[in-house]
Amino acid sequence: MKATHVTDINAADARDYMRRLGQAARESAVVVAEAATADKNAALEAVAQCLRDDEARIIEANAEDLTAGKRAKLSDALLDRLALDAGRIAAMAEGCRQVAALPDPVGEVSGMAYRPSGIQVGRMRVPLGVIGIIYESRPNVTVDAAALCLKAGNAVLLRGGSEAIHSNRAIAESLRAGLQQAQLPAAAAQLVETTDRAAVGEMLRMRECIDVIVPRGGKSLIERVSRDAMVPVIRHLDGVCHVYVDDDADLGKAMRVAFNAKARRYGICGAMETLLVAESVARRLLPQLSRQYIERGIELRGCDKSRAIVPRMKPATEDDWYAEYLDAILAVRVVDGLQQAIAHINTFGSRHTDSIVTENLASARRFLRRVDSSSVMVNASTQFADGFEYGLGAEIGISTDKLHARGPVGLEGLTCQKYIVVGDGHVRP
Amino acid sequence: MKATHVTDINAADARDYMRRLGQAARESAVVVAEAATADKNAALEAVAQCLRDDEARIIEANAEDLTAGKRAKLSDALLDRLALDAGRIAAMAEGCRQVAALPDPVGEVSGMAYRPSGIQVGRMRVPLGVIGIIYESRPNVTVDAAALCLKAGNAVLLRGGSEAIHSNRAIAESLRAGLQQAQLPAAAAQLVETTDRAAVGEMLRMRECIDVIVPRGGKSLIERVSRDAMVPVIRHLDGVCHVYVDDDADLGKAMRVAFNAKARRYGICGAMETLLVAESVARRLLPQLSRQYIERGIELRGCDKSRAIVPRMKPATEDDWYAEYLDAILAVRVVDGLQQAIAHINTFGSRHTDSIVTENLASARRFLRRVDSSSVMVNASTQFADGFEYGLGAEIGISTDKLHARGPVGLEGLTCQKYIVVGDGHVRP
Repeated sequence: MKATHVTDINAADARDYMRRLGQAARESAVVVAEAATADKNAALEAVAQCLRDDEARIIEANAEDLTAGKRAKLSDALLDRLALDAGRIAAMAEGCRQVAALPDPVGEVSGMAYRPSGIQVGRMRVPLGVIGIIYESRPNVTVDAAALCLKAGNAVLLRGGSEAIHSNRAIAESLRAGLQQAQLPAAAAQLVETTDRAAVGEMLRMRECIDVIVPRGGKSLIERVSRDAMVPVIRHLDGVCHVYVDDDADLGKAMRVAFNAKARRYGICGAMETLLVAESVARRLLPQLSRQYIERGIELRGCDKSRAIVPRMKPATEDDWYAEYLDAILAVRVVDGLQQAIAHINTFGSRHTDSIVTENLASARRFLRRVDSSSVMVNASTQFADGFEYGLGAEIGISTDKLHARGPVGLEGLTCQKYIVVGDGHVRP
Repeated sequence: MKATHVTDINAADARDYMRRLGQAARESAVVVAEAATADKNAALEAVAQCLRDDEARIIEANAEDLTAGKRAKLSDALLDRLALDAGRIAAMAEGCRQVAALPDPVGEVSGMAYRPSGIQVGRMRVPLGVIGIIYESRPNVTVDAAALCLKAGNAVLLRGGSEAIHSNRAIAESLRAGLQQAQLPAAAAQLVETTDRAAVGEMLRMRECIDVIVPRGGKSLIERVSRDAMVPVIRHLDGVCHVYVDDDADLGKAMRVAFNAKARRYGICGAMETLLVAESVARRLLPQLSRQYIERGIELRGCDKSRAIVPRMKPATEDDWYAEYLDAILAVRVVDGLQQAIAHINTFGSRHTDSIVTENLASARRFLRRVDSSSVMVNASTQFADGFEYGLGAEIGISTDKLHARGPVGLEGLTCQKYIVVGDGHVRP
């Protein structure tokens, strides 16, 4: 099956085109919402098989994107994200199978209890409807996001980056084929096949057709979506994550956690960007820990007190407290103690993930309650902030918003709960 | 304590004024979020006592609103909603005490479990931050909404209708006094003291200061808020509720449920607006049930098939299927059976509350799963859709949205959950 591709369209056409996609998504959402668990799983298995069968075709399409990308002088990092090979395609297929293996959240009933009136009241987990995903270069998002949305009983509209358009079209054909093999509507997972930016604007306004938008990508994308969206958004802003080493920290644990939180991987949103150290332990901790960071090639930017202990640190400015480096740079600040640490995190942080290292129960308790972040940790590396590590399975993103979903958003975050009431002819007095 | 009142201000002043209120709310939200349960309860008890002590002052202020309302030729229904007397003030105070008696949702930890890595992961319920309430004439909302927001650990900005401004100011003084007696910041519950409409526009845009807006009032208010809000909104649109009497209904139960769902009270959002009857039982049910409705003075508007059975019905048009009468009018439609009933509800309904009357388990199961409403019921009157009946205690409204909160929104809907992670020096491999 060969799809018709829409490449160059004007704004009015974009509007019509998007409305058609949206309408088809809305209609197919009803079918997916009611689909049996076994049918959804069969579809995901079929998609996985189609991806493997279509490997050559997908790699060929990907080559077109890579050629265009080189011509457009994309950075090596970007080209690497864009590139697909047999291994990466197998990983996408495996991801589909893993989502198929997750428990189906749809229809789960909880809290069913008798009320004094005699009615039973509880909640049932149900799909959100149509999810719009707006993302950048990585073509694997096309499969990952579609699999999660479908398993949660939703239809999905996928809008990938223009630099990956050929790869995404090829992958979308495998999605369609898999859905059709399993007798689910192909419109349950549609790719926006135009690279026209007007299409994104249209998606952000399609309240009748889209229930929630999940943007995945860099800051400018998230900001545009936040500014223009009339559809509700589940958003991930920055990950300015902290580790605070408390007065009562075990310094061995502090060394391990603080080093891992920064050095394991720099480029993920759960990576620590600022280390906060209680003044009472700074002289014992910082010299040795700094040596480890510096040996690893990490640049340290410290406050005056930190630099008095480790003079090799560069001076930090207020901008450093706000910075999400995603790189081999770490800001370091010596604080009076717990209260100043919490104030620092709630002022300069991004409500993503923050950890305290302490043996003191009262400090741990206070930190857990008062730090206003989507994940708050005790004696654990911030790099644990991840759907798999939390037992959610794959995630569609990590929300730094407060409404609906906070932290890693997996299948549950792509559903909502309605109330169900069961009586036996009960009427309200 | 006499507050300074802001009555006539221009748009630029409104902006400054609202930003000041918002900033004060944001600061006090931190204090309320961390307040101990006992302190929040003491504040609510103190507010209740202040309301009783201030009864004469509140009634005097209310008289000003009533005089102005009569001069402005408000309807009798509106004047009745506006009027306060000793009984209504006592009811507001009692409402405060009832909220104080509810369990504190803040800090509740759930799902704490060990992961293969050795970390424990769970969720902690935490306040949303600052809630903005925009409401119309009833002055009791000032107290009810403030009590719920405070108990859930939030600060609240209250924007009542201009016709109740004197009453609301008097009530706000009691709120302030109660909060101060309990050593909580008075800015945790602030009334917008200007009636300038620019203040509402400002509220809807104050993303840094307000975390969520809850509009309470008529359709035009909700529509304006939905259109203009840049702050997330928890919304209640229409309550176009249905009862569907299935082929396998017990007709005795059907009579009771269908009559109660319409006739108990017309003006509440959970009142049934359209009765759907399976063709196989219509001839046995409709004549007697219609007689009951007509005796109660309810006007019936039926489809052709209904009118063939009960000729006294007026003919219904498609507009009737969409109508939220909130009055002694009922639309009646005979449908083929379950499937058409579900399609009717999902097409014409407002996703509020819908009920099936049936003895058939398969039909009940299908209805519960497929009807896409915030409350879906079996053999129970739609008038049960209410926070108290569901065991949530008081409610701030009934959400017909899907994200975050669906159905009656009580204390839990005014909170969110963050992840908490506890380890013992764990690092991610």
